[in-house]
Amino acid sequence: MTERAPARLSIRQILHPRSVAVFGASDNADKFGGRIMRFLTRHGFPGRIVPINPRRSEVLGHRAYATIAEAPGEVDVAILAVPPGQLVGAVADCAAAGIGCCVVMTTGFAEASEEGAARQDELAAIARRSGMRIVGPNCMGFLNPAWKLTLCSSVVLEAERLLVGEIGLVSQSGALMVSMFDRAYGDGIGFSACVSLGNQSDLELCDFLEYFIEDPATRVVCLYVEGFVDPARFVRAAAACRAAGKPLIVLKTGRTPAGVKAARSHTASLAGAYDIFRAVCREHGVLLVDDPAIMVRLADLLARWPEAGGDGIGVLSGSGGSAGILADRLSEAGLRLATLAPTTRARLSEILLPPQADNPIDLGGRRPPESVEIAGTAMSALAADPDVAVIVMGLSSMPFFENRTRLLATAAMASGKPVLCSLLPGPAADRPRAALREAGCPFFDSTEEQLRTLGHFMAYRRLAAYGAEPAVRPASLSPQPVPLPGGAGHREIGTLLAAYGLPLAREILAKDSDEAVAAASSIGYPVALKGVTRDLVHKSDAGAVKLNLRDEAALRAAWEEIMRALARSRSDAAQPANGIEGCIVQEMVEGGAELILGIKRDPQFGPVVLVGSGGILVELLRDVELAPAPLSHAAALRLLRRLRSAPILDGIRGQPPLDLNAAADAVVRLGWLAADLGARLVDLEINPLVLRRRGRGAVAVDFRATLLPGG
Amino acid sequence: MTERAPARLSIRQILHPRSVAVFGASDNADKFGGRIMRFLTRHGFPGRIVPINPRRSEVLGHRAYATIAEAPGEVDVAILAVPPGQLVGAVADCAAAGIGCCVVMTTGFAEASEEGAARQDELAAIARRSGMRIVGPNCMGFLNPAWKLTLCSSVVLEAERLLVGEIGLVSQSGALMVSMFDRAYGDGIGFSACVSLGNQSDLELCDFLEYFIEDPATRVVCLYVEGFVDPARFVRAAAACRAAGKPLIVLKTGRTPAGVKAARSHTASLAGAYDIFRAVCREHGVLLVDDPAIMVRLADLLARWPEAGGDGIGVLSGSGGSAGILADRLSEAGLRLATLAPTTRARLSEILLPPQADNPIDLGGRRPPESVEIAGTAMSALAADPDVAVIVMGLSSMPFFENRTRLLATAAMASGKPVLCSLLPGPAADRPRAALREAGCPFFDSTEEQLRTLGHFMAYRRLAAYGAEPAVRPASLSPQPVPLPGGAGHREIGTLLAAYGLPLAREILAKDSDEAVAAASSIGYPVALKGVTRDLVHKSDAGAVKLNLRDEAALRAAWEEIMRALARSRSDAAQPANGIEGCIVQEMVEGGAELILGIKRDPQFGPVVLVGSGGILVELLRDVELAPAPLSHAAALRLLRRLRSAPILDGIRGQPPLDLNAAADAVVRLGWLAADLGARLVDLEINPLVLRRRGRGAVAVDFRATLLPGG
Repeated sequence: MTERAPARLSIRQILHPRSVAVFGASDNADKFGGRIMRFLTRHGFPGRIVPINPRRSEVLGHRAYATIAEAPGEVDVAILAVPPGQLVGAVADCAAAGIGCCVVMTTGFAEASEEGAARQDELAAIARRSGMRIVGPNCMGFLNPAWKLTLCSSVVLEAERLLVGEIGLVSQSGALMVSMFDRAYGDGIGFSACVSLGNQSDLELCDFLEYFIEDPATRVVCLYVEGFVDPARFVRAAAACRAAGKPLIVLKTGRTPAGVKAARSHTASLAGAYDIFRAVCREHGVLLVDDPAIMVRLADLLARWPEAGGDGIGVLSGSGGSAGILADRLSEAGLRLATLAPTTRARLSEILLPPQADNPIDLGGRRPPESVEIAGTAMSALAADPDVAVIVMGLSSMPFFENRTRLLATAAMASGKPVLCSLLPGPAADRPRAALREAGCPFFDSTEEQLRTLGHFMAYRRLAAYGAEPAVRPASLSPQPVPLPGGAGHREIGTLLAAYGLPLAREILAKDSDEAVAAASSIGYPVALKGVTRDLVHKSDAGAVKLNLRDEAALRAAWEEIMRALARSRSDAAQPANGIEGCIVQEMVEGGAELILGIKRDPQFGPVVLVGSGGILVELLRDVELAPAPLSHAAALRLLRRLRSAPILDGIRGQPPLDLNAAADAVVRLGWLAADLGARLVDLEINPLVLRRRGRGAVAVDFRATLLPGG
Repeated sequence: MTERAPARLSIRQILHPRSVAVFGASDNADKFGGRIMRFLTRHGFPGRIVPINPRRSEVLGHRAYATIAEAPGEVDVAILAVPPGQLVGAVADCAAAGIGCCVVMTTGFAEASEEGAARQDELAAIARRSGMRIVGPNCMGFLNPAWKLTLCSSVVLEAERLLVGEIGLVSQSGALMVSMFDRAYGDGIGFSACVSLGNQSDLELCDFLEYFIEDPATRVVCLYVEGFVDPARFVRAAAACRAAGKPLIVLKTGRTPAGVKAARSHTASLAGAYDIFRAVCREHGVLLVDDPAIMVRLADLLARWPEAGGDGIGVLSGSGGSAGILADRLSEAGLRLATLAPTTRARLSEILLPPQADNPIDLGGRRPPESVEIAGTAMSALAADPDVAVIVMGLSSMPFFENRTRLLATAAMASGKPVLCSLLPGPAADRPRAALREAGCPFFDSTEEQLRTLGHFMAYRRLAAYGAEPAVRPASLSPQPVPLPGGAGHREIGTLLAAYGLPLAREILAKDSDEAVAAASSIGYPVALKGVTRDLVHKSDAGAVKLNLRDEAALRAAWEEIMRALARSRSDAAQPANGIEGCIVQEMVEGGAELILGIKRDPQFGPVVLVGSGGILVELLRDVELAPAPLSHAAALRLLRRLRSAPILDGIRGQPPLDLNAAADAVVRLGWLAADLGARLVDLEINPLVLRRRGRGAVAVDFRATLLPGG
């Protein structure tokens, strides 16, 4: 493949073109080119518009040219929706004519067929050779409202005007991009730019994400993603986005169950691809959502109220019913109702009956005279309370609905605190809706959407407070990666773990029962005896583990039983008996809790570590957490603390606290092992890691790994 | 209190009055009475309207009277919003004048003050003495659209017309009633009747619920509830509603944490009041929701498509993005995408590209020629598939949006299968919205609401398939309740449990160590030794339990340790040492799993049984299920199967299956114990119940109870 030619235009230049060429330009709005011309002129694109159409000399007042080669002067961006058969030729013509960037809307490429994929490769090759950039194919173009640029043919651009905002949107789906744009328009929300990517033959998601990180007009970035072209670049960009103080919101579909089915270990089966993506996002402060409408509303809130505040929610409602519903649902969502100060309650008591003069406020409980104005007074009092960080309103129908809503919205917005309102009624709330719109107060016609958006908004504040401590390699680790062993035998993996400083139970491999007796004397009774074969995963299933052997007689009897059990399972599997390597004699380890630690290598995001509560319940209750590797000691502690069984680690029901630091240290070491060892390490698992009481450490009792063959 | 006089009118007569009197009637729509007059005439109430106003001779064409006593003829229902001070007198006048029912909108009663509560008692007394019924006070009246009756002053009745439907709505909150009514109106959904209850001084929720069960015009019943006047009556009505084949949907707020704080046992602390209500609802087929808007949409779906069908969801979307989002979210919600038959896929392949010609269908992947009509063809193919039970659409902006949406909606509705559509765009989807409305196709502007409603809709189908087996008293139980013991000592509760046939570990109470040694010989080593005091709950916390004692020496040593530990905890608590009753010598019980079984008595809904997975994790993971007592063996099995740890019961990871029947039998027996023993039994707990392998039964190892004193 030839060297990539220098890019003719930067992303900023592509999104701010001085001139655009429209292939198939006409004044027929039933055609792609016709609609694009219509929207460009309608919304007042200030640059030069160059219609390309062999059958026209002028389109909508702009001089038209038969071919792009004939168009005079420099053309920054060309947009094409020509038929698939002519597309590659047209793009090549653009490259030859010195165009800066082609936006290809034509479909029928990699998304459709093998043949289309080949055509798409030709496009990519043109871009690479020429330095002309390509957006698409199979995209719906992009929009830059501040630049009055609408390179897009969707009917949503029939909108009366373009709303400029501080949200940057990148979407792999064109239909979702224009739908989100239109929904936002209905809610009075604008964008700094909206880009649809299509098949990403040349420019990909991260090109635009990186642009938005730098763009001073963008405060929040939204991504709709189906799959990443360059996951590592995304992770770097996410970190840069966080460092720039810009919230990054991602909606990801299309999870890949690949690999999970074939899972042989807990780590593999418990760490689905999306779980790993979620862990990566959490560690980089990326907010994950699952609804495009909510993504836009959330972005708007974060753009308007970027400062993190407290977690107290102040609730005001027009009726006791709505107040009760909100209070119940907020608590269920794990959100905290603010505790009002005595002075706030005193102010409220002047206008409301005692049960209603507290959070949640029920405006229905008014003291006589029930003046309309008390709505504003009550809201001002609530919003001024120091523990109220966010204001939530839930409005049902009430007397003087419109006036009271206006007073509530005005008072709430005057506080400068974030506000989310929802309305239950239908048409009867249309005038209150207009009042909210006028006051600039965010509102929802669905409590469901209001609360989901609020939940994400509060989660972002927690996420933002999260440290981004760098993972520092422990001084006790060799600065160079330890070489991977040739195989994944018990001894080889044990040696690897020991090299990374993981605490292993004392054990000796014995080839016969006499060696086992000698080993037990050296270790000291009681001991455990575990049959070792080259390919046995769950030793206990085959009766090949005997615990708590107190003396030589018990040890010898156990040896015989294990050998019989292994021989049986060998012959069942119709495999040669020489798979049996002997038995491990191991110290009996007892402690306060068992954990499972694992490593998995994600094909996209690389190594991750897994921690879970041990024992049989781990599978049933999936009390498991993941994080990308390597990770800091603080991140490892956070990971352990997120387990639902975490209270056991601190000691409950009269049990002593356990050695959490030792567990975190093991997680950190495993993380470096994962980070060092590259793609040959498919997965690795320590199960159980026995955690002793605080100060006494942790011990890995058993482990296994899967390595790809070869060096 | 005097006998209740016979009711002057039935609920049916109250909701279908031949004549209504309006207190404070005027033509000033700023006043309550003015608006009521306006709405009654506007919507064409066909009965007689009797304005009551001393300052008017006529209101809106109806002859007015100064007092109710002067009004000629029979008046079925009077509606009053007169000031609190005059209200009781006015209601007494109505009773004297022979009115059938008073609807009292006036506020300032029990919800406001002690004085108000006293006034409310007077109202109740008038109703009781006279037989005149009262709705309210503090209510917003009721609506019967088919009868053109609007006894309500809310501005939502400015609506152009009343929509008649098959949903009966009872709401404790007036504001929520009118808001739901209006929202439903906006969505084209009508009601058989809407009733707001207010303070339920006379007529209460169940009066109207029972009416709706009998009402042939009502197909689905919705309740908004803050608290029950008569919980037992509600439970009977719920069962009757299910027997009548009418879905009952309940939104309940205002949970009562009372009692939970003071909880001394797991049973008490794990069984919150709302958890119990939820369990009662599940056993009686009641659907619980938490959002009024969703309640109405759900009711509409259940009224339109009452037949239970399969669980396969057919998804059609206008773009790959929307299809992906829906597929991910449906799977996450535990819903199943239908598996399309080969013939269906063949039909789809004629018009769609291969990856899009399956469930979820992405209409964006059209084969050329991309005729608009393929939308209808694709939907017809999907809807005809035998595994598609419910059709879900998610529409983003697409070419020919309006026409394609019309074709999709028409084809979907023609199938007769339930359809739920959602639209992501804002104003650009207004014409598609109109097309959906025209086709009668349910649609949502929020995917969130669509999916929540769908989730409830599918849950109802599962709930309806649930058996309602009667709880039959086991033949081995005495037909009469066993008398409650005088105290809650270990021995007394053990005797009680044994009388109900619960399997207890063999044990002997020993007063000194010699008695303990004799007991151990009789039971056989190994044994457990457990200190018994009158008020010790968690014995293991005080070091008063010693397990696996293998011989006399170990037993005697354990005895001394327990005595020392108890003495220590006694003196800590500064209580007399004579609380120590001795030690229990108990057989060592081992088995495959530990369960916790409990009984709790709910102040509203009576006795419930609790099952949970045992051990320390029960508290952390709350793997607990509840059911009202008594319950059938089938219901007990269902309860156990709902535990997240249930797979352990069937045997996992090479473990044998456990004696699930024995566990269910213990649950059934505990249920009868709870049902028999009445209010003196506050709670009781068996922890653990050790479950042995199948066929070998279960054994209760430890237990405790709380009894109220007295007989």
